Amino acid sequence: MNKKQLSLLIALGMTSQLVQATEAPIALAIHGGAGTIEKAKFTPEQEQAYRQTLKQALETGYQLLEEGKPSLDAVTAAIIVLENSPFFNAGKGAVYTFDGEHELDASIMDGQSRQAGAVAGVKRIENPITLARKVMTDSVHVMLSGEGAESFAKQQGVALVDNKLFDTPFRYDALLKAKEKLEKAKNHTKDYQAAHFALPMEFKMGTVGAVALDKLGNLAAGTSTGGMTAKRFGRVGDSPIIGAGTFADNRSCAVSATGHGEYFIRYSVASDICARVAYQGKSIEKAGNEVIHDVLAPIGGTGGVIIVDSKGNISMPFNTPGMYRASKSSTSPTYVAIFKEE
Amino acid sequence: MNKKQLSLLIALGMTSQLVQATEAPIALAIHGGAGTIEKAKFTPEQEQAYRQTLKQALETGYQLLEEGKPSLDAVTAAIIVLENSPFFNAGKGAVYTFDGEHELDASIMDGQSRQAGAVAGVKRIENPITLARKVMTDSVHVMLSGEGAESFAKQQGVALVDNKLFDTPFRYDALLKAKEKLEKAKNHTKDYQAAHFALPMEFKMGTVGAVALDKLGNLAAGTSTGGMTAKRFGRVGDSPIIGAGTFADNRSCAVSATGHGEYFIRYSVASDICARVAYQGKSIEKAGNEVIHDVLAPIGGTGGVIIVDSKGNISMPFNTPGMYRASKSSTSPTYVAIFKEE
Repeated sequence: MNKKQLSLLIALGMTSQLVQATEAPIALAIHGGAGTIEKAKFTPEQEQAYRQTLKQALETGYQLLEEGKPSLDAVTAAIIVLENSPFFNAGKGAVYTFDGEHELDASIMDGQSRQAGAVAGVKRIENPITLARKVMTDSVHVMLSGEGAESFAKQQGVALVDNKLFDTPFRYDALLKAKEKLEKAKNHTKDYQAAHFALPMEFKMGTVGAVALDKLGNLAAGTSTGGMTAKRFGRVGDSPIIGAGTFADNRSCAVSATGHGEYFIRYSVASDICARVAYQGKSIEKAGNEVIHDVLAPIGGTGGVIIVDSKGNISMPFNTPGMYRASKSSTSPTYVAIFKEE
Repeated sequence: MNKKQLSLLIALGMTSQLVQATEAPIALAIHGGAGTIEKAKFTPEQEQAYRQTLKQALETGYQLLEEGKPSLDAVTAAIIVLENSPFFNAGKGAVYTFDGEHELDASIMDGQSRQAGAVAGVKRIENPITLARKVMTDSVHVMLSGEGAESFAKQQGVALVDNKLFDTPFRYDALLKAKEKLEKAKNHTKDYQAAHFALPMEFKMGTVGAVALDKLGNLAAGTSTGGMTAKRFGRVGDSPIIGAGTFADNRSCAVSATGHGEYFIRYSVASDICARVAYQGKSIEKAGNEVIHDVLAPIGGTGGVIIVDSKGNISMPFNTPGMYRASKSSTSPTYVAIFKEE
């Protein structure tokens, strides 16, 4: 648009067109978990299938942003694609608990209103991210757990599904392997806790998430997961914890985390990144790198985050061999990656 | 100690005595909840009884600090006194859920190691703060919920008690009143959520907590609660959420919060106060006042916090008519207060 066109719009009082004409930035980033994700572990076909699903989730959300829809819609839509895919540890394809079930956690946050919703330990909700959003919009609470969260779902007209819907042979195999390792370790340590701590990284991670900036300048973040393989005792990780796994604030940034959840809770990872941006004036790249590489990596806090700020910048740091991720913005083309240095 | 005595200690290599001789600061602050706590609501005897219990909790914890015990011990001991008292909404005297039971939440954090533990929705644990501490020290997790947390307790040799142990006629009366109000409001709104939101403040608050600095310079924070009267759907408030209701970091401060939990989660209150201290170089007084009065009060986020820093400074801001509170440090005498401007 040239100056003449701009003057004309202003003269005609066509402010809504003007808002569109200024081409407000939009941005979307998604992740499908971080961990020991190495090229040698994939057949070319498998790798292609993962990339295809990431691309589909990204495009589904990005299209909504292009249509001028809220960042909350884009985040929800992208996460639903990832929850419905058996490849990722959320919704269908979620890992198994020690008792052979699936317990799902999710959370979502609106950067404009700072409203948030979360569910922990739900077993019969097909898309936990949509229930987290209902907790945000249709309840007076932020976090609901277990059967109580399912009663709320029922009251809201959300269908309850069979827990077996989330079954996949791949994850069941992982449970058997994890239990075998736990059993062996127990002979040495006599301690379930120590044995679980010693499990390889791939049993303890896996999450999906999305962060977005919409045309109105509003940020949103969401996260969904099945948690740790062979988890027990109603363990809650960082994914449903606002401030740990998910955070959004229009004044700084939107963050979704994936990794060894206990570390992400103890270090309030998502809100700490936003605090460094808000209070220290750091870029999201610097703030994210500091927390992931300087704070978490030295103490063994493996994982990563995706971050979007209100200018549409995107950063996706991780300290593991790989992280399923994809991004797109007004100023950067579609990017889909799995391994380091792609 | 004069210069001559100091020289003598150094000459004799009596460094351990020297450490004691430097008189490292210690500090303890406790709270028993914030809310519509006004003088007119108490008989002189009742007021005296509340003050007496606060004093007892403070002295129990402070004595441990004087003996050189860790801040975690002081926090735990002070909270146990408050949990065991029927006056406060934690342990015995906890509010009732909508279904007429008690569901208890607690969390604790060590400012030195940044280790943390939390339990949510436990029904049969006499002192939830001690189970939160066991989650921290004897599990690989940070947060356990519901029956799973109780299975962990059993495995750890913690006795399970009858939920009726927490009953008090005063709180049962509050449940009946709350349900009556909910029922009336429902006729207008047809909406349980809106009705619950409209409940007076006193039904939605009440928590106990403690923050401490020990002789080694280590900070700790802990919080315990029965949550909101007539809560449903497995609602989780801020008390078991590290970063929201509880946070401790030796580099900045230790915080325990009390108030309308949903706001405290959305604004990551405890970790935000520590972030303002760490990243903006603010005093705990300034950081606490900003969050309680400038951030939370304008949006209706009622409540308060207690804060201790590594120099032994104490701050206890709240935006409600009153907050049960008490404090003592190396440089400040015993202080017990309930109402504003005491």
